[in-house]
Amino acid sequence: MNTEHAAEAIFLERDILATIPLTRAMQLRVARFDGATLRLVAPLAPNVNDKGCAFGGSLASLLTLACWGLARLGLRAQGHDPDIYVQDSVIDYVAPVWGEIRVDASAAEGHSLADFVAMYAARGKARITLLAGVAGESGFATTLRARFVAKRRVEEDT
Amino acid sequence: MNTEHAAEAIFLERDILATIPLTRAMQLRVARFDGATLRLVAPLAPNVNDKGCAFGGSLASLLTLACWGLARLGLRAQGHDPDIYVQDSVIDYVAPVWGEIRVDASAAEGHSLADFVAMYAARGKARITLLAGVAGESGFATTLRARFVAKRRVEEDT
Repeated sequence: MNTEHAAEAIFLERDILATIPLTRAMQLRVARFDGATLRLVAPLAPNVNDKGCAFGGSLASLLTLACWGLARLGLRAQGHDPDIYVQDSVIDYVAPVWGEIRVDASAAEGHSLADFVAMYAARGKARITLLAGVAGESGFATTLRARFVAKRRVEEDT
Repeated sequence: MNTEHAAEAIFLERDILATIPLTRAMQLRVARFDGATLRLVAPLAPNVNDKGCAFGGSLASLLTLACWGLARLGLRAQGHDPDIYVQDSVIDYVAPVWGEIRVDASAAEGHSLADFVAMYAARGKARITLLAGVAGESGFATTLRARFVAKRRVEEDT
């Protein structure tokens, strides 16, 4: 990570932990941001289920937050701070996760953070489809595809 | 609720809280079970997001758990206690949730708990599609449609 990206990862982690109490229980960390992808991690213990592997609700939360955080940092890089909402999502639970949960988010094929930010700058509203996956022993153990909407806050001037 | 259903609701709540630590942070409660539908509730405060409404990860967790719990109690009513996994899910976030989160789960159209349990009894494995919705001011604020698999545990004799 370059210095600016590292600072943004720290900002995002502090902000998520401060405003979404459940993420403190999950012990979420923002591990990496490179301008185009974002990585979240969380230990298994606080996110375990009845079978001793990762709880589906924790996986869904981390996958959604990884995408949301990526959209947020993409917009912040150009000076924007709108509300960002998840609109819908599809999750595939391919294999159980037995260790640390590591989630990587990026834009879906045919989508880009740059287009999303440009659209938001032009219209005060923009949509993007993002993908996230939980690393498994071979390939992704869980995947999410979700649509997000950024919308200018009432109090925002930019 | 009849006495048996009430006892099952209490069993499920205790079991979820004991085995999935994140549900304690969410302050999940099993509010109702009638043999065909299950209701979970959770207060807003521990499940809030940066915008002051319900965190999407909490909604996804509660929606998934409501369906999982319904499948579980349906199987238990006939003496079965297999592992139950969520396979995939589609979530629509229709409107924000500004108060207590109330989730109702039931079988999807063309599916029934009875068929699911009969299939499990016959083959030791069964699938079902379940629906759950979070109550909103008018209609559902969030909906989930998900497929679940029940699979005999290695140590289970039934």
